[in-house]
Amino acid sequence: MNIVFTFRPPREIQADLEKSFPEESFFFYKTIEEAEVLSEAEILVTFGNDLTSERINTCASLKWVMVASAGIEEMPLKTIKERDLLVTNARGIHKIPMAEFTFGFMLNHVKRFAELRALEQAEVWNKQLPLQELAGKEVAILGTGAIGQEIARLAKAFRMKTTGVNKMGQLVQDFDQVFQMDQLETAVGKADFIVAVLPSTPETIGLLQPHHFEAMKEEAAFINIGRGNLVSEVVLLSAVNDNEISHAYLDVFSVEPLPPAHPFWRHPSITVTPHISSITKQYVPRAIEIFKHNLRCFIDGGEYENVIDLDKGY
Amino acid sequence: MNIVFTFRPPREIQADLEKSFPEESFFFYKTIEEAEVLSEAEILVTFGNDLTSERINTCASLKWVMVASAGIEEMPLKTIKERDLLVTNARGIHKIPMAEFTFGFMLNHVKRFAELRALEQAEVWNKQLPLQELAGKEVAILGTGAIGQEIARLAKAFRMKTTGVNKMGQLVQDFDQVFQMDQLETAVGKADFIVAVLPSTPETIGLLQPHHFEAMKEEAAFINIGRGNLVSEVVLLSAVNDNEISHAYLDVFSVEPLPPAHPFWRHPSITVTPHISSITKQYVPRAIEIFKHNLRCFIDGGEYENVIDLDKGY
Repeated sequence: MNIVFTFRPPREIQADLEKSFPEESFFFYKTIEEAEVLSEAEILVTFGNDLTSERINTCASLKWVMVASAGIEEMPLKTIKERDLLVTNARGIHKIPMAEFTFGFMLNHVKRFAELRALEQAEVWNKQLPLQELAGKEVAILGTGAIGQEIARLAKAFRMKTTGVNKMGQLVQDFDQVFQMDQLETAVGKADFIVAVLPSTPETIGLLQPHHFEAMKEEAAFINIGRGNLVSEVVLLSAVNDNEISHAYLDVFSVEPLPPAHPFWRHPSITVTPHISSITKQYVPRAIEIFKHNLRCFIDGGEYENVIDLDKGY
Repeated sequence: MNIVFTFRPPREIQADLEKSFPEESFFFYKTIEEAEVLSEAEILVTFGNDLTSERINTCASLKWVMVASAGIEEMPLKTIKERDLLVTNARGIHKIPMAEFTFGFMLNHVKRFAELRALEQAEVWNKQLPLQELAGKEVAILGTGAIGQEIARLAKAFRMKTTGVNKMGQLVQDFDQVFQMDQLETAVGKADFIVAVLPSTPETIGLLQPHHFEAMKEEAAFINIGRGNLVSEVVLLSAVNDNEISHAYLDVFSVEPLPPAHPFWRHPSITVTPHISSITKQYVPRAIEIFKHNLRCFIDGGEYENVIDLDKGY
């Protein structure tokens, strides 16, 4: 069976795969453009942003696409559905780094590390900077899946109050309360932090509207580590410029990379990071663990992990 | 009874004290120099750094010194002992802000927020910055009291390994293992973070020696939020300059404020913050809660909180 990777995992992972599945033929390419045997692939392992309908249609024997990331919005889902392909992703491997990154943002906010660093660079000893605590503060988490739950779990450890928002409002572990999506305005009203970890789906694009930011506390900080198109750039800029919120921490954007000279880069109330919250050394090894489990199922039968429902889009 | 404060709590706290103890006479001064009725004080409430033997000896009726901080090393302990005064402090109120601050340092370290901020200021989108995770890393905590335990508790929530160091090596909750002080070299050898939360006592002054830093991993980060005199400046500078460790995060110093032009300020492998880890808006209210409990005991009897053992120094 031909298994084609359109990215190159570290050498030891390649060797481990070949040793674990000696019957199969693995082909590791740096990019999909270099993948000479693409048309003979039965299994395709990709980061998900290099597939087109044309490319998929050249793969006559393709049965399964493993996406080594979480978002599948850049994939030609219509073609994939027509071809009745199995699609799995790496959902779940992001929760640890993304939750840690979120607490990095939150602690930088309450402990004013940017200002502390500026004082340090100016060699100024100033004990008067009013630091705050996470303890006792409330975080509203939009999205209560694996990542949202990990953030809520850590928030409880930090003695915070946790509010969740999901489609039906069903209660989830480590959340003090959960609101339905149509109660978003109420859900964010008392929060000190609003953290968005929503995927990009027809329902979430442009979900956050001006009245949601107006409902937030002036001192609240908005953190988006999900998808940039959750809120339009114009709405977000107005929210910070009109002091509806105190700061926006953004790891994701409507257009990535964020273009040079974009107003977000130098805005004093906006922090920009390069869609990096989920990326750590542990990323590929963890995605490959899921792939190995599913490959075993593909060969011998068993229950797949992380099968994508193509109608729902996640 | 005359209760003299050498700092001014917020107005609502003053009002609450006067309402809660209507029989007593409270005097609130901005500094000890302004405290006109100092000599008539029976109870003195201070941050602990404004007392001298002379001042104490002018207070003929003094029975109790409440220190609204944790460190008592700047107090004239010999005179206090001779006078047989009760001394209590605000031990325990520091654990939440100091543990949070420690995780701010640790997350800034693994998530490279200083570099991310430099990239942002240069408007450069770089996803290649190799971020790390706290999960799976080991933290060695020197001191397993209230603050050390709170750090260990959060470390377990972050899926870290926790090593403690205390006098006798007795196991404490949320620590995977605890070493005796004389096994310090072994204790720090596998740690990714070494966090010092020790008080200043004859045993801890200059405790960390060059061989301890040599025993640490090259990629380890050293965090000191306890007392600056735990390690001499020369030893610490050598440790970072010789790459015995990768970074030192320092909130405390042998001489505070850290003098202008001191080599720590601009050292690329040293981060300086102004002894601020414990200071938040919640500080004075929490200290006053302890004081109120003890004042009730002073009047009606009962068990005091946080009595200082003047022989041990904590």
